[in-house]
Amino acid sequence: MGFIHLYTGNGEGKSITAFGLALRAVGHGYKVIIVQFMKGRKDIGEYKIKDRLTPNYVIRQFGREEFIDLRSPEPVDYVLARRAINFAKKVINEKPRLLILDEINLAVSIGLVHLDEVLDLLSSIPESTTVVLTGRNAPKELIDVADLVTEMREIKHPWKRGVQARKGIEY
Amino acid sequence: MGFIHLYTGNGEGKSITAFGLALRAVGHGYKVIIVQFMKGRKDIGEYKIKDRLTPNYVIRQFGREEFIDLRSPEPVDYVLARRAINFAKKVINEKPRLLILDEINLAVSIGLVHLDEVLDLLSSIPESTTVVLTGRNAPKELIDVADLVTEMREIKHPWKRGVQARKGIEY
Repeated sequence: MGFIHLYTGNGEGKSITAFGLALRAVGHGYKVIIVQFMKGRKDIGEYKIKDRLTPNYVIRQFGREEFIDLRSPEPVDYVLARRAINFAKKVINEKPRLLILDEINLAVSIGLVHLDEVLDLLSSIPESTTVVLTGRNAPKELIDVADLVTEMREIKHPWKRGVQARKGIEY
Repeated sequence: MGFIHLYTGNGEGKSITAFGLALRAVGHGYKVIIVQFMKGRKDIGEYKIKDRLTPNYVIRQFGREEFIDLRSPEPVDYVLARRAINFAKKVINEKPRLLILDEINLAVSIGLVHLDEVLDLLSSIPESTTVVLTGRNAPKELIDVADLVTEMREIKHPWKRGVQARKGIEY
């Protein structure tokens, strides 16, 4: 079975670490597939880069442009999360070197995606594939099943000083 | 003055987070310059990707192919670190969106680079540039001067189970 990396914690750098791995894998000419849960903004660097890295770098978003209300998701959020999981199940057959399930930890923790479905998906990872799970509040069961777990701890963050998100840095 | 991000800690994901930021910035068409301290291996994904991301993505290595002995660096290691700092000082004038000083925390902590020189460099960052400092054992003075600090904490690592480094994942 392939490897599972999990990045969680309250600090910055969870999704962006996954994208660093993507850059590394594409650098070797490998195929990378990214599935974004709850994200739908297209004017982000990690989405726009796809044109330069095609066909090795595939990114699909399953979210709305707007932020999701974590405490009371809308019906469409459940529908999109379902599509994301189905897409992941399908593309795993392509045996990408890297399959990034971005924000899936949070999606599971707020109930958009059932834990069992994720565990089921993870049990079928090809030997040559590494799956990366990102997002806050990773459920214990996902941490248990992961091979590598890093917690990003926030020591200091400029947003706390009221700094606006910077293009090319925060998005 | 520009922003300073610092990634440290004993967990995996410090350098690779910086490369994720690089991908994001290049996705927006910005210029990124990466200076690698103590690293000289060319068969790594983050080095090889440069051909696909030129001219936005510039990476220069100032290290040997071999691992450096952290407890007793060789004279050449000091020479290379000096060249790296001088290169960084020079390219900051190009006002890249992102300037990554990879492993500089460790380079300072083992005395390859003087802290004062790094602080001097950081005091001259253009407003539009974000500098990223990576590496274990970040000196307190660098943490103090950084705007954003994330500690990568190792919760679980497969190397502990004797797993070999995987191409496109660990390098």
